[in-house]
Amino acid sequence: MKSFTRELWFETKKRYELIDITGKVEEALAASGIKEGLLLCNAMHITASVFVNDDERGLHADFLDWLEKVAPHEPVSSYRHNVGEDNADAHIKRQIFGREVVIAITAGKLHFGPWERVFYGEFDGRRRKRVLVKIIGE
Amino acid sequence: MKSFTRELWFETKKRYELIDITGKVEEALAASGIKEGLLLCNAMHITASVFVNDDERGLHADFLDWLEKVAPHEPVSSYRHNVGEDNADAHIKRQIFGREVVIAITAGKLHFGPWERVFYGEFDGRRRKRVLVKIIGE
Amino acid sequence: MKSFTRELWFETKKRYELIDITGKVEEALAASGIKEGLLLCNAMHITASVFVNDDERGLHADFLDWLEKVAPHEPVSSYRHNVGEDNADAHIKRQIFGREVVIAITAGKLHFGPWERVFYGEFDGRRRKRVLVKIIGE
Repeated sequence: MKSFTRELWFETKKRYELIDITGKVEEALAASGIKEGLLLCNAMHITASVFVNDDERGLHADFLDWLEKVAPHEPVSSYRHNVGEDNADAHIKRQIFGREVVIAITAGKLHFGPWERVFYGEFDGRRRKRVLVKIIGE
Repeated sequence: MKSFTRELWFETKKRYELIDITGKVEEALAASGIKEGLLLCNAMHITASVFVNDDERGLHADFLDWLEKVAPHEPVSSYRHNVGEDNADAHIKRQIFGREVVIAITAGKLHFGPWERVFYGEFDGRRRKRVLVKIIGE
Repeated sequence: MKSFTRELWFETKKRYELIDITGKVEEALAASGIKEGLLLCNAMHITASVFVNDDERGLHADFLDWLEKVAPHEPVSSYRHNVGEDNADAHIKRQIFGREVVIAITAGKLHFGPWERVFYGEFDGRRRKRVLVKIIGE
């Protein structure tokens, strides 16, 4: 069994951003030399998500609008976590969209359907954040 | 380390369906010959989910009612994704219910608690869709 | 490839509880002797979650308040599952917060970011429940 580990760094400019990281995940897979196995990709911060969906700008706007509607940032004081913090909503948004994805590796590729892409979802940005890629297989 | 890969195909009749796929996942596991390891089961489409819950008709109706309440299909025009599309809500429903499950394999079986069953959740059906089963172990 | 399996038992006193199980997961990892691989930790019951987030009391109160707002327990009769049951909301809460986490194992440790902790989220407690830890690697 082989294993491979890589941390990806992101510096976001806005509080909320959805970033396509499929290319970076594929680079890690190529560097691993693993042909059959499982790839874990997870946010290393608890106000961010890694998820698989479509690379379509209108949909991403819908995602962020919807998350804001169900778990609004304001009023900041409505959350008990927000004592010296203002990111309770970001923790909740991350819970909804999830921490991680596990992707099958088949014949050296991400075994994806036609529109699957990997995204980093930042809900409390404007500072450096990490995503982990861990691959095991042969 | 062994690995095993199988794609399952579904043709749903309705826009929304929750289909018990536990038997098909168990068939893939038996075919793999793997006794100890991890099994990944994921939707290969971005408007569908794979999840673990109870096989109870009333609960499934509650799931679909609840998803419709928090991420309604109508009005279709309320979503920016819906330009030539009408499935933005299905992308959001899939984000809530998740893309995938990872299941432990112990002694050649799905290592499940008493009521755990695997479901394919379709939120934009009436066409052919795929689910992936990937198993690694020994 | 090595594999390791351990079930953890919990008896919760309240209907809803969020319990930090990071120490128990680390004990299982140490017992496994596995240095590189993947660790799956999942609820074995379908009204409970395992998730990764922050160990902060105010945030946990926010999580439970928010889940109650979006998927309320009352009125019990509003759910079709609740015929001889009263836990349909707990199934929905679990769907939102997820069944499982997959954690990278690197150099014999949970490969975590600065604030990541593992929690068992109970939404229909006051009886014995199980969490599974499965580790594969080398």
